[in-house]
Amino acid sequence: MQQVVLRRRPVGLVTADDFELIEVPVPEVADGEALIRTDAIGIDAAVRTWLEDQPGYLPPVQLGDVVRAATVGEVVASRCEAYAVGDVVTSLGGFAECSIARDDLFTTVVGAAGVGEEVDREAMLAVYGSTGATAYFGMHDIGRPRPGDTVVVSAAAGATGSIAGQIAKAADARVVGIAGTEEKCRVVVDEFGFDACINHRTDDLSAAIREHCPERVDVYFDNVGGTILDAVLGRLAMHGRVVLCGVISSYLTGEHPGPANYVKLLAMRGRMEGFNTMDNWDRYEEADAELRRLMDAGALRYRSHAFDGLESAVPALNALFEGSNIGKTFLRP
Amino acid sequence: MQQVVLRRRPVGLVTADDFELIEVPVPEVADGEALIRTDAIGIDAAVRTWLEDQPGYLPPVQLGDVVRAATVGEVVASRCEAYAVGDVVTSLGGFAECSIARDDLFTTVVGAAGVGEEVDREAMLAVYGSTGATAYFGMHDIGRPRPGDTVVVSAAAGATGSIAGQIAKAADARVVGIAGTEEKCRVVVDEFGFDACINHRTDDLSAAIREHCPERVDVYFDNVGGTILDAVLGRLAMHGRVVLCGVISSYLTGEHPGPANYVKLLAMRGRMEGFNTMDNWDRYEEADAELRRLMDAGALRYRSHAFDGLESAVPALNALFEGSNIGKTFLRP
Repeated sequence: MQQVVLRRRPVGLVTADDFELIEVPVPEVADGEALIRTDAIGIDAAVRTWLEDQPGYLPPVQLGDVVRAATVGEVVASRCEAYAVGDVVTSLGGFAECSIARDDLFTTVVGAAGVGEEVDREAMLAVYGSTGATAYFGMHDIGRPRPGDTVVVSAAAGATGSIAGQIAKAADARVVGIAGTEEKCRVVVDEFGFDACINHRTDDLSAAIREHCPERVDVYFDNVGGTILDAVLGRLAMHGRVVLCGVISSYLTGEHPGPANYVKLLAMRGRMEGFNTMDNWDRYEEADAELRRLMDAGALRYRSHAFDGLESAVPALNALFEGSNIGKTFLRP
Repeated sequence: MQQVVLRRRPVGLVTADDFELIEVPVPEVADGEALIRTDAIGIDAAVRTWLEDQPGYLPPVQLGDVVRAATVGEVVASRCEAYAVGDVVTSLGGFAECSIARDDLFTTVVGAAGVGEEVDREAMLAVYGSTGATAYFGMHDIGRPRPGDTVVVSAAAGATGSIAGQIAKAADARVVGIAGTEEKCRVVVDEFGFDACINHRTDDLSAAIREHCPERVDVYFDNVGGTILDAVLGRLAMHGRVVLCGVISSYLTGEHPGPANYVKLLAMRGRMEGFNTMDNWDRYEEADAELRRLMDAGALRYRSHAFDGLESAVPALNALFEGSNIGKTFLRP
C-alpha cells in the first residue's frame, strides 16, 4: 500500500522535498486490531500545524512518520470485538491507503455494518467531527446569534466558515460571508444560503461591510485575522461578539498585524474571544446532534473539494493556505 | 464666584486659550432649587472627552459653557425639600465655585446634614461613584479574579487602576501593577498594597512581566492600550481575561496600534472585552456597597493629587494625560 511520510519539516508552504510517497506492506492485523481502508483524508489546518516541531494537544509528527490527518474509511479485516468488517469509521489514519484501528487515533464507528442506510462518508469529516464541532462551538458558545442579528463569517467558502454561517442562518440571523474569489462568493450565496458575500480581493472591504451590514456587525466569526479582522471590528455593533477561530492569514508567515480597531471593543462594549475545539471533546455528541438536526431539516449543505491520489498530498495541503479550495478539502487515496 | 468656561475646543492637550476663568454672580436660588459650594472637582478622562464635539452618553460641552466635571460639595442655601443646608452632595457641578442642584447634574446626597460622622468628601469621588464603579464593574463582571490568579493592572497608580488592583487583592489574587515612574511604583506597592509594580519606562516590559508573572496573566485590567496591552497579551494565561477600560495612550493622538498578540486570545482561549460604566448606572449601589465594605475592612485606600484654585484648570486636566498624577486628581476651587 501507499503512504506519505514526513521527510523534512516544511517552512511555509509544503514542497515535494518535505513529503515522500512510499510503498509499504499492508499491516498485519494482530489480535485485538482491525484494518481500515481509507476512503477519504480530510485536509484541515491542523494537518499543517502537526508538522511543526511545537508541542500541542497532540505531539508533533516525527520525521519518517505518516503525515497525520483525519480519515474516513471502512473496516476490511477485524480480529477484535470493537470493529466489524463493513463498519464505516473515522480515525486519524493519516496520509495512507490503510491504517490499523487504535484508541490513540480516536477511531470511531460512524456507520455500523449492515445497519440501515448508507453513510455519507465525506460528510463524516466535512460536517461532523472536528470541522462541524469547531463551527458549532464557536457560533453557539461565543457568537450566540439571535434572530435578526447580522453575522459576518470570513473564509466563508471554507469547510468551517460555510458551516458556521449556516448555523447562524438556522438561528434566523442575517449572514454575510467574506471570501477571496467570485466563484467562492457565488457558492457561499447559492449553495450555502448566505444572504450576501463580499469578495475581499476586489471589493473595497470597509465600504462593502458598511453596505451589507447596515445595522453593523453583531457577530464576527473570524477564520483569517489580519486586515479583514480589523475591517470588521471597525463595523462592530453594540455588544458585538468576535469569535476567534483561526488566523489562516498568518499560519505560514507567522505575521499577524494587530487590529487597531480593537478599540471598538471598548466603544461598543464588545467581546473578542478565542476557543479550541479540542477543549470541548466531551461535547462532540452535542455538536453532532445539532448538526444532524440541521442536515435532516435540509438546512445544512457541504461541498467536497477533492484531490485524487496520495501523489497529490502536497497540492491538497497547500490548497488550504493558498485559498484555492471551496468547501471541505479531501485527499482520496 | 469664579468658573472656567470652554472658549475653544482643544486639540490634544488643553492650552490656556481653550479655557477662560471668569467671574460671575453667585446664582440666585429659585423655588425648588439649592445652592452647592464646590469643595473638590474630580478630574477624569471623561472631562476631556466631553470637550470634543462628539455625541456620547452626555452631550458635548458647548462653547461658553462651564467645563463639565464631577464635584463634591455642600449645600449652602436651599429652597427645596430634597436638599438641606449642610448636606454633602456629589454632582456634575463642573469647574465652578458654586452650582445649582439639578436632576440633570445627577445631584446625590452622600452625607445628610447633622447625621453622624463626618463624610470623607474626596473619597466620594475617588472611591465611590464613577471611578470606583468603573474599577468594580470591570474587575467584577469581566476580570473575575479567583484566589491565586495573577492580575495585572496598567495605570496602576491612577484613580481607577489603584482601586481595580485593590479589588483584585481583596479577592486573594496576586496583583502586579504597571506604572510610569519609580515614585508611582512605590506608592502602588506601599500604599495600594499591590504585590509588585513594573516601571514601563525603565524596565524591559516583556521581561518584567515574565519575571513578576511566572504563572502567566489570568486577568489584565487595561487602562492604556498600545504597546503595554500588546506586551501583557503576550503573557496571557489559559482562559485569560482582558478588561478593556481605557486607551489613555491614544486619547490625545487618536492613534492606537493594534495588539499583534491578540492571537494569544486564540491560543489561550482568552477573552478581551470592553465595557462602559454608564451602562451600569442602575448598579452603582451594588458597586458602592462593595467598595464601602472594603473601605470599612481597611482593604481599600485612595490618594488625592490636588491642584489648588480654578486657575490650575489646565495643568490639572493635562496631568491625567501626561501621567504626572498619582491617585485621584482633584481641582480644589
